[in-house]
Amino acid sequence: MHTNMDPNVRRRGSGAGLRGLAYLFGVLSIILMIIWLLHFRGSIEYDSQNPAPMMAYRTVPAEMRVKKIIHMLLHIIAIVMGIIGLCAVFRYHNMINLGDMYSLHSWIGLTTFILYCLQWLVGFLVFMVGRSSVTKERMIGWHMVAGRALLFMSICAALTGLMEKAQFLGLKYQHEARLVNFLGLSILLFGVFVDLSIVYGRYI
Amino acid sequence: MHTNMDPNVRRRGSGAGLRGLAYLFGVLSIILMIIWLLHFRGSIEYDSQNPAPMMAYRTVPAEMRVKKIIHMLLHIIAIVMGIIGLCAVFRYHNMINLGDMYSLHSWIGLTTFILYCLQWLVGFLVFMVGRSSVTKERMIGWHMVAGRALLFMSICAALTGLMEKAQFLGLKYQHEARLVNFLGLSILLFGVFVDLSIVYGRYI
Repeated sequence: MHTNMDPNVRRRGSGAGLRGLAYLFGVLSIILMIIWLLHFRGSIEYDSQNPAPMMAYRTVPAEMRVKKIIHMLLHIIAIVMGIIGLCAVFRYHNMINLGDMYSLHSWIGLTTFILYCLQWLVGFLVFMVGRSSVTKERMIGWHMVAGRALLFMSICAALTGLMEKAQFLGLKYQHEARLVNFLGLSILLFGVFVDLSIVYGRYI
Repeated sequence: MHTNMDPNVRRRGSGAGLRGLAYLFGVLSIILMIIWLLHFRGSIEYDSQNPAPMMAYRTVPAEMRVKKIIHMLLHIIAIVMGIIGLCAVFRYHNMINLGDMYSLHSWIGLTTFILYCLQWLVGFLVFMVGRSSVTKERMIGWHMVAGRALLFMSICAALTGLMEKAQFLGLKYQHEARLVNFLGLSILLFGVFVDLSIVYGRYI
């Protein structure tokens, strides 16, 4: 049957499938996180570096200029949530007299967040403020590649954070331990499918 | 000055630079790991999922058939080392009466290893045993994409493993804690630059 199909139609179809899986694991991660925090922990903490804006170009049905602004705004929201999250962490550590910045999670997390802000700033200056289309063309590849590296790093920050929290709480074979592990796998698969849906068409 | 250069020469030059950084962080990771195990822990443990074979196609100056065999053999070595590592872990847990497979690290690690073996098997059947060039052409994109996802997952397995070990040892502000964190960052940057050197030419 496939041989009779227009290859472009099939291509667009599978790309949407990969994006669908990315959103599925994204939503699943949020649901598992909410269940964990409300059912087992009794409150909501906030921490975010949301890679969904990366898919805005393919998902949002609008013209290029609008897509670009949505992409930029979604990343601003992520940065604001990141700042709130970081403040909460330092305040919490201070409250319970725990040291700061000693774990691998904290090193990866802060490095990623600083580079993420830099990436946003460079992107803003080059693609929103800048007028030179030569510079834009020269930078777009690096901007995408750096974005993918930051996605990779933020997933690592999230997973090492879950490890730290799980060990801090002494989780082993309880229901909560399994929930946290499923949350971790779901975040990992979210990252994998966001990445796949972005590279789709360049390899497959 | 750049405008007078042959763009292909410049392109190949930067690609080699990215590969150089990948090897730099790869070697740095091995050195930090050896220092950690010998100086602080007093013995060598073994665990591996070595992504270097992914770069074999660009690094090894040989014809396609030879590159393919080297690529396959390097991945076999990684699988054998993975099996030895897994056996060592289960035996060690048994020896000190620690449970198995409860942490996020163990879930990510075992999932990654099983998928890694499957990827090898499918790759072997399609590209070494298989004769159909249509199938090969249809599969090569997926094989590369799956390989990149597995690289991503194995880095996550390594970093969550370092977190687990660091917390298990109660590391906080000692020299050893900092060494482990630098090792983690180095492994992360190794993954980022291996990935960059592979996608190089498709984005940049």
